Amino acid sequence: MGDSNKYILDESRIPKAWYNINADLPVPPQPVLHPATKQPVTPDFLSVLFPMSLIMQEISTERWVEIPEPVREVYRLWRPTPMYRARRWEKALDTPAHIYYKYEGVSPVGSHKPNTAVAQAYFNKAGGTKGLTTETGAGQWGSALAMACSFFGLGLEVYMVRVSYEQKPYRRIIMQNFGAEVHPSPTDRTTFGRKVLAEDRHCPGSLGIAISEAVEVAATSNGAKKYSLGSVLGHVLMHQTVIGLESLEQMELAGEYPDVVIGCAGGGSNFAGFSFPFLWKNLTAGKKTRIIAVEPAACPSMTKGKYAFDYGDAAATAPIVKMLTLGHTFVPPGIHAGGLRYHGMSPTVSALVDHGDIEARAVRQLATFEAAVHFMKSEGIIPAPESAHAIRAAMDEALECKTNGHRRTIAFNLSGHGHFDMMAFDAYHQGRLEDYDYPEERVKEAMQHLPEVALPGC
Amino acid sequence: MGDSNKYILDESRIPKAWYNINADLPVPPQPVLHPATKQPVTPDFLSVLFPMSLIMQEISTERWVEIPEPVREVYRLWRPTPMYRARRWEKALDTPAHIYYKYEGVSPVGSHKPNTAVAQAYFNKAGGTKGLTTETGAGQWGSALAMACSFFGLGLEVYMVRVSYEQKPYRRIIMQNFGAEVHPSPTDRTTFGRKVLAEDRHCPGSLGIAISEAVEVAATSNGAKKYSLGSVLGHVLMHQTVIGLESLEQMELAGEYPDVVIGCAGGGSNFAGFSFPFLWKNLTAGKKTRIIAVEPAACPSMTKGKYAFDYGDAAATAPIVKMLTLGHTFVPPGIHAGGLRYHGMSPTVSALVDHGDIEARAVRQLATFEAAVHFMKSEGIIPAPESAHAIRAAMDEALECKTNGHRRTIAFNLSGHGHFDMMAFDAYHQGRLEDYDYPEERVKEAMQHLPEVALPGC
Repeated sequence: MGDSNKYILDESRIPKAWYNINADLPVPPQPVLHPATKQPVTPDFLSVLFPMSLIMQEISTERWVEIPEPVREVYRLWRPTPMYRARRWEKALDTPAHIYYKYEGVSPVGSHKPNTAVAQAYFNKAGGTKGLTTETGAGQWGSALAMACSFFGLGLEVYMVRVSYEQKPYRRIIMQNFGAEVHPSPTDRTTFGRKVLAEDRHCPGSLGIAISEAVEVAATSNGAKKYSLGSVLGHVLMHQTVIGLESLEQMELAGEYPDVVIGCAGGGSNFAGFSFPFLWKNLTAGKKTRIIAVEPAACPSMTKGKYAFDYGDAAATAPIVKMLTLGHTFVPPGIHAGGLRYHGMSPTVSALVDHGDIEARAVRQLATFEAAVHFMKSEGIIPAPESAHAIRAAMDEALECKTNGHRRTIAFNLSGHGHFDMMAFDAYHQGRLEDYDYPEERVKEAMQHLPEVALPGC
Repeated sequence: MGDSNKYILDESRIPKAWYNINADLPVPPQPVLHPATKQPVTPDFLSVLFPMSLIMQEISTERWVEIPEPVREVYRLWRPTPMYRARRWEKALDTPAHIYYKYEGVSPVGSHKPNTAVAQAYFNKAGGTKGLTTETGAGQWGSALAMACSFFGLGLEVYMVRVSYEQKPYRRIIMQNFGAEVHPSPTDRTTFGRKVLAEDRHCPGSLGIAISEAVEVAATSNGAKKYSLGSVLGHVLMHQTVIGLESLEQMELAGEYPDVVIGCAGGGSNFAGFSFPFLWKNLTAGKKTRIIAVEPAACPSMTKGKYAFDYGDAAATAPIVKMLTLGHTFVPPGIHAGGLRYHGMSPTVSALVDHGDIEARAVRQLATFEAAVHFMKSEGIIPAPESAHAIRAAMDEALECKTNGHRRTIAFNLSGHGHFDMMAFDAYHQGRLEDYDYPEERVKEAMQHLPEVALPGC
């Protein structure tokens, strides 16, 4: 297999358990706080929104959590995903580095999102939930959950940011064909939505507003509906670890072990899913792989944010968590990588960045698309703008190897394809793609609105 | 492997030779005629448009034609493609049939087209061609050739039907990012284009016009440029046989052999690529698999056409071939399966349909999308509207098995994904999708314009 282009695993190699990094965290987990009382929440409070099985996963410290057979059965539609050696790109870069990429774009909806969508749909169904609610921006998450709900016979209401609903109809169409109800948010279906519309009848919506609507619908459904989140939370990150667990095996097939592991990070789920199994080897088996999380310079929660307690959503109705944040009122510039426009970062990833186990790096939009097209001309695959952030960092590492004559092994996660983001590639090709620097003033303003939290030992 | 969902092959199993059905044809091949003289053309005539190596493949009767190593090296980016057992869909259909599908949508541009694009780019490069020209409708073929030319360092000019250029920009953007020049056709770059524009300055274009422009540019380039075609011709079909050759091995892994093999057919290339290796077993090894080619009721060259000599293009400037045709002036209704809107059918496929080796079947647009969404709700994959024709036929076969209690093994080719065809799925979901019956009057009219050919023995 020494000269292969891709390393593929048999279906029997789909992991049988998810890796729960809570078992190996070098820092104690921080409590989740109630948005109103600012005191630690109880599982009972969370159970309005989530089935108990997922809440138990959220707080579990067991290293391995078994993947139920019906979830693995769905995973078999596209998993194990391939791990590629980017031989043609290495040549084009003229680098001594060996570059590997794990490709999650082969899932039916084109990203890593179904790894947790399928698990969440299963546990909800098993727990008696009749239907789910969620929010979505451009629809990456919504389309994954729509597929999962279709498979398990669960209803789904998606609150989709109105401007995306109107301007980026493709994933909306996918959701509808899978049977989901999709509402352009803000809607008049919720108290919060009506309040927003009363203030501005033409409000284009935001992810913050959509979250608040989806949460309100679940919270007021008398238990009929639960709410589902596509990133940030611990159990979501854990479901994604199938990516990294497969990758460990595939690197073994390739006969190499990565010196550098790279993922893009918005809420943190694809990054964690790919990197945590390698981090596990760092934390428990003496490996010294550099783990790099890449974010946009326009929304730099890890490189410019503060490690502090903040609301999970813009409307300040979601729980408060300790994370690297730019302030929950921060609205990032309109970069094309919509999935990386979150004001904060998963608490677990934040803690590991703060503790020094993970390196954080910010890259700019134009350099990201330059890398994406360079990659595409060698490997063929059109990457999602989000995933292109990982490509940029991998390219920089490979070019550094060329300059300094280092023969390093670099592995990154190509979290999805860019088939629904072609207008961004058009703007790049036409020279119309805007670049964005660090929006310092906006961040400074947003930092004024962090909640004041007084807890012993936090 | 008895309960697997997918059958995957190692890179070493990428075929080393293409299967050339000319070696086993039960009927003699018919000559290709010059569009003006209506007499058989010579290789010299064709060499204005094609490199000699491809012309030799076109007329070869060797059963196996070696695949050059640089072509196999590119194939390794996505081949072997997976063969799936549609277990979830079988359950949803409640059928005793076993359904398998080969999935070509995993190629970087999302269809089977790169199988021949890469080969054609390679043989042109090896033959000293500096650049290629081609036409494209919605861009499926153009994007495949753009990728291939980018890989082999060949220039590419694509003449893209203007209405698609403007209304379906996605594949145009892909082509441009791969470095191709894309012109909305008709253009003022060719004599023919200028003539068309003089008659109608706002002409929306057609595939026929685009072919004529691409051919003219190559023919008047003094040998610098050659022309490349994405279907219909024998060498193009042959390059696609990697699909069926891999499938033979994958069915063996699955421990079954198909009773029915199904592909959609526009020009015939994905259909032939998948089915010819099974047909080879019928012709030479006593197998009795039913081979079904599926076309749209709106463009039924095989089920309603005449087996006659006709021009390959609407402008009557391309060579004349004997094929099942609706008349080269026939303009089919605007079905979403743009790749199935060709007035004729590959001469080889036509001869085999005429001889009874291949069954032809026509399905309607609405029933096709119904099948596509039914499939998608079980298997996740969003199929291209073209490929959905094969899905419809497979579904009908499976339902027939259910009615009659037959335990048949059905295999079909899922030639590509529908990520760039979402507006068609939107129309379907909204109940706005038009259905089309057989356009009898249009065909009757077009049949008046078949060329008169007088050749002994044809």
